[in-house]
Amino acid sequence: MAVKVCIVGCGAIGSVIGAHLARLPDVAVYAYDTSAEHTRVMRERGLRISGASEFTARLHATSEPREIPLCDFGILATKCLHTRAAIEQTAHVFGVSGAVCSVQNGLGNEEIIAEHVSQVIRGATTMAAHLTGPGHAELEFYSDLWIGPFEPTGTPYARVAQLAEILNRSGLRAVPLRDARGAQWTKLIFNAAVNPVGALTRLHHGAATRFPPTAALYEALLLEGEFVARTLGIALHGDARQMIAEGAKAPGRRKVSMLLDILDRRQTEVDFVNGAIADRGEKLGVPVPLNRAIWQLVKGLEHSWKDPS
Amino acid sequence: MAVKVCIVGCGAIGSVIGAHLARLPDVAVYAYDTSAEHTRVMRERGLRISGASEFTARLHATSEPREIPLCDFGILATKCLHTRAAIEQTAHVFGVSGAVCSVQNGLGNEEIIAEHVSQVIRGATTMAAHLTGPGHAELEFYSDLWIGPFEPTGTPYARVAQLAEILNRSGLRAVPLRDARGAQWTKLIFNAAVNPVGALTRLHHGAATRFPPTAALYEALLLEGEFVARTLGIALHGDARQMIAEGAKAPGRRKVSMLLDILDRRQTEVDFVNGAIADRGEKLGVPVPLNRAIWQLVKGLEHSWKDPS
Repeated sequence: MAVKVCIVGCGAIGSVIGAHLARLPDVAVYAYDTSAEHTRVMRERGLRISGASEFTARLHATSEPREIPLCDFGILATKCLHTRAAIEQTAHVFGVSGAVCSVQNGLGNEEIIAEHVSQVIRGATTMAAHLTGPGHAELEFYSDLWIGPFEPTGTPYARVAQLAEILNRSGLRAVPLRDARGAQWTKLIFNAAVNPVGALTRLHHGAATRFPPTAALYEALLLEGEFVARTLGIALHGDARQMIAEGAKAPGRRKVSMLLDILDRRQTEVDFVNGAIADRGEKLGVPVPLNRAIWQLVKGLEHSWKDPS
Repeated sequence: MAVKVCIVGCGAIGSVIGAHLARLPDVAVYAYDTSAEHTRVMRERGLRISGASEFTARLHATSEPREIPLCDFGILATKCLHTRAAIEQTAHVFGVSGAVCSVQNGLGNEEIIAEHVSQVIRGATTMAAHLTGPGHAELEFYSDLWIGPFEPTGTPYARVAQLAEILNRSGLRAVPLRDARGAQWTKLIFNAAVNPVGALTRLHHGAATRFPPTAALYEALLLEGEFVARTLGIALHGDARQMIAEGAKAPGRRKVSMLLDILDRRQTEVDFVNGAIADRGEKLGVPVPLNRAIWQLVKGLEHSWKDPS
């Protein structure tokens, strides 16, 4: 019997993961997205991936959670802002034993998911992708997808290993870990530097990496985040500086996702990234002036769209 | 015999000061500006002031420094970036005894002026104005103009008092001080909060003052600057928090000047404001992470216009 996987939120990363899994004969993929147009195109023409890989996958796409059967796994891939709404809509799909893996940015998503489903898996990835239109995602580059049990739900490691096995067989680079907090924090710290600096300066990632003032700011932000992680007893897994260097080498003038949000006047994920680091640092008495200031500036930028008097 | 005053740089503040002085029968005003169009309109139709005051003044406007006679006083009112070029062009106008007063933002202007003229006066003002077109400046509100001797040139206080007397008689609010460093630093610290936060968030000043995250960032930036001033032994004169509150009460949705620079893609004064505070703080061992980060972000934003690959 096929393993059933529900992709909750078919944005760029959700689409990339869903399309890969859908190529496996023993996996059935249900793609849930609130966009009627995106799901219609996925249903009629399939889900197209281009860039680092080129193929079109057939999967079950819907905007109607009641059409989705009971699934073994969920991949939650919405923006952080939509985690609560997305899991409230789809929790029934995971019954009593389905495990839902967050592959989102920032901190706090797993806690929200765990309010609704009994098995939760932490996830973090540095893959970069963007939607180019309905039914079409561009994968900029493959990269690791770290997954591990979310401690409070006592998710067995065997479930994590099972998910990693199908992800890897589908062509992705999943890394199952007994403790994924270090990987998640490395990604978080990377994000807390790269995303808001790109959003506030409008520099693409490569330029910000090569320009000495913004490179120095990246470094200062990394140091703050690392100090918070250390104080929390989290051993970082992976190297944020190497992630920055790799992103800078990728072809094209890549705008970071928070800059795309800003340019489109969409609320950003800064609460879950710099805001989360600043909150934890201040609670622990670790100095986090830069993460707090960055959070304040991005919140100010979001506030400016309301053009308040 | 009339007192001769040369306005060096007839931007918004230079125009407001020049137009006021030109109304005095015993003062002759020479307005130097590099814009041929602005000087042509000033020559042909006079210099118009609107907003907090409404009048048109007749003065001698020119883009040709050789046309300006020997002057008793200079008011240097260019952007900091143009201080050196402006004083190099006009130094001869001040002979051996003319005194040049900077009414600019930031730190370091007096030092540059003193390389070229023998008597320099420190100045700082919180008046707000903008040019609306050639020959026309809009004065948003009157406010104090603090002036005092620039210590290294040993400018006699009597010269400062003489300048204050004509400024006050012309309708401005000059405050002569034996030591104007405290007033200059209060204005600097005010600027270091209000200008870059407006530029980076695109919030007008009132909105940034009322929005709690940006208000908290203002406060954190003020505290850093105050710590540097204290360590330098400078007693602040005036109240930056009151300047912020007063600016917020002014009518209209006032974009701070650094935001106007950013929107027009003109290089900002951040090197002379946050950069100057960060440089001095780092030299003194005073923590200035926020001024440094703000400097890095604004430099990044300026760098983005080059769209480097």
